[in-house]
Amino acid sequence: MENFTFYSPTYFVFGKGQENNTGKYVKRFGGSKALIHYGGGSVVRSGLLDRVKASLKEEGIAYIELGGVKPNPRSGLVYEGIDLCRKEKVDFILAVGGGSTIDSAKAIAAGVVYDGDFWDFYKGKSVTKALPIGTVLTISAAGSEGSPDTVITNEDGMFKRGASGEALRPSFSILNPALIQTLPKYQIACGITDIMAHLFERYFTTTKDVEVTDRLIEGLLLTMIKEASLAVKDPDNYQAQANIMWAGMMAHNNSCGVGRAQDWASHDIEHELSATYDCTHGAGLAVVFPAWMTYNMKHDVNRFAQLAVRVWGCQMDFANPENTARAGIKALKEFLKSIGMPVNFKELGAKEEDIDQMAHTACYGNGRSGTIGGFAKLSEDDVKNIYRLMTMDEMD
Amino acid sequence: MENFTFYSPTYFVFGKGQENNTGKYVKRFGGSKALIHYGGGSVVRSGLLDRVKASLKEEGIAYIELGGVKPNPRSGLVYEGIDLCRKEKVDFILAVGGGSTIDSAKAIAAGVVYDGDFWDFYKGKSVTKALPIGTVLTISAAGSEGSPDTVITNEDGMFKRGASGEALRPSFSILNPALIQTLPKYQIACGITDIMAHLFERYFTTTKDVEVTDRLIEGLLLTMIKEASLAVKDPDNYQAQANIMWAGMMAHNNSCGVGRAQDWASHDIEHELSATYDCTHGAGLAVVFPAWMTYNMKHDVNRFAQLAVRVWGCQMDFANPENTARAGIKALKEFLKSIGMPVNFKELGAKEEDIDQMAHTACYGNGRSGTIGGFAKLSEDDVKNIYRLMTMDEMD
Repeated sequence: MENFTFYSPTYFVFGKGQENNTGKYVKRFGGSKALIHYGGGSVVRSGLLDRVKASLKEEGIAYIELGGVKPNPRSGLVYEGIDLCRKEKVDFILAVGGGSTIDSAKAIAAGVVYDGDFWDFYKGKSVTKALPIGTVLTISAAGSEGSPDTVITNEDGMFKRGASGEALRPSFSILNPALIQTLPKYQIACGITDIMAHLFERYFTTTKDVEVTDRLIEGLLLTMIKEASLAVKDPDNYQAQANIMWAGMMAHNNSCGVGRAQDWASHDIEHELSATYDCTHGAGLAVVFPAWMTYNMKHDVNRFAQLAVRVWGCQMDFANPENTARAGIKALKEFLKSIGMPVNFKELGAKEEDIDQMAHTACYGNGRSGTIGGFAKLSEDDVKNIYRLMTMDEMD
Repeated sequence: MENFTFYSPTYFVFGKGQENNTGKYVKRFGGSKALIHYGGGSVVRSGLLDRVKASLKEEGIAYIELGGVKPNPRSGLVYEGIDLCRKEKVDFILAVGGGSTIDSAKAIAAGVVYDGDFWDFYKGKSVTKALPIGTVLTISAAGSEGSPDTVITNEDGMFKRGASGEALRPSFSILNPALIQTLPKYQIACGITDIMAHLFERYFTTTKDVEVTDRLIEGLLLTMIKEASLAVKDPDNYQAQANIMWAGMMAHNNSCGVGRAQDWASHDIEHELSATYDCTHGAGLAVVFPAWMTYNMKHDVNRFAQLAVRVWGCQMDFANPENTARAGIKALKEFLKSIGMPVNFKELGAKEEDIDQMAHTACYGNGRSGTIGGFAKLSEDDVKNIYRLMTMDEMD
């Protein structure tokens, strides 16, 4: 284990009906005038937005609204939000939605109190100051409700980049699993894949002696595998949604990722897919991960075998651990198929002719120096090879 | 899963040499004059206290000192600390030590800003206000470095009671695994047992559908089992101490215990042992847990079998799950013996003739109503029976 600091001061409010307490928590964390930030119509149609507004009114908290956040949230709306908040003297940003809405809210919160262009943060500047942020989560996926991270797509070139900083941890997050029950099954499955991807990014490490975080990650993956099929089969299964929702937060607040190098190349590789095809992030990750694993297994076969045995229940092939490692990747792919995820370019709607451009942008775009990834350092050629693996129906 | 709130705003600073940054964090969290609270000579002899003082001086933070905290910390020193802090206008409590020192520091921090008797909190009043607390942890055990809890022994009758409240979460905690390397093996083993006990107390629940927290608890137990023997065999094994140290925090900050009923009868039963014989809390728990498990297995055999299979690697006896459950308890007992823990009254130095009095105090002392425990409601007779099981060399 390496030295680290860990700070996760978000107040989590978990369970049925908790959105009706939103106003109480905005007040507790210092808000007097909030921007309610949200996406499309479902938050309106379901009545959630009305319930949140009623709870703000009850506590005497003023608010303005900015809807229209799209999946893979855009820089344009962030600029609009920053201007609006300054004009209206907003002192609290309240995100009602999923990861895209929360990430957009974080960008606004950081931008409002920053003199320069908010995109500076997405070019690597750490966020040390932001307006307080609250969230009412509507999908278990991104983990942004407990993380110090945000990802935005710059419309000037359509590339996605992340920013980070302790000031971006939400002051509070309201997690009501019942809100997930109204989502389409495909969206639920995309969220599940995203959560598992956050765990894989942390699992594949070059740091030795990390049993505690290995075991926490494995425990969360085992939870996801059990609960995912229940939740996708029957979205009304509150208990499955509840288990997934807490696992989703724990997967990304980094309590299971401290003290170890992490990878994150798969996210970089996926970001080019969703920026190019505007596909759902989770669906892109479902296509990327089996390919990334197959390509990089050689760097530490025993780690892949450990995952296969402890998480997928594979038998260890002591004479040839690579067989076990491959069996684990196959199990992942079968699992992703079983919850309705795409697992290759064709199913995602991606095109082989875009590979060169995407690999180049992943490795060199926005100031990157030519390699990505912490577990395996990937060159542009490596990334091309990984994209090519995704064009095959079966990789092994 | 049940509804819950979770708030763990402690800033954790983990790794080698981090105690030299103590002053920086006292400053960050608003301290200008600190009480340094500690126990006996080891903190002085090792030079740790001097390093902490030097780092306070470096940041211009004034301090006074109060040493002398004993294991099973006493109310008398708490009163002394409260008077001292008021007289000296202290605005920050810095604990340098283990769970006893931190718990005593928490009691002082709450007492200084409270008009009544601090013992009110240990009779059930929630702590909503306290001076900010920082810790430099010297043993992985109590988890008090990340918890909202404190346990104090009242010298007027020698009984132990706990208090709790969000205000008692430390502002920061410095976790340097190298500090554990100088401890006697017996103390390390007692700490390990305490950590595992915190996990068992949460594991035994009547709440259904708690896969995510089950899996997190199991992951932490698996970590402890692997790392414990390494750490006890060779306390200089930094990596083993590091894994145990993070597991110890995670075991008790309650991220793995949210949304589920918990038990805690074993802690109540043990508190009478350490109050009566002044034994180390972890050693007492090593004697209590196998007995508590044997006695209460009948309430949910499958949960005990699940623990046996997932954590102890026992084979499931599908025809008779009770056999598997018993095998798990046996494995726990063997494990505790292997790290040098006592597992019965004789080895602990406890006496059969005290059973009636201890059972009575556990169930009725300090305003309790006659039953203890969340998983199984135990009467005074049940508690007597559990103590009696501890007098046997082999229970099964």
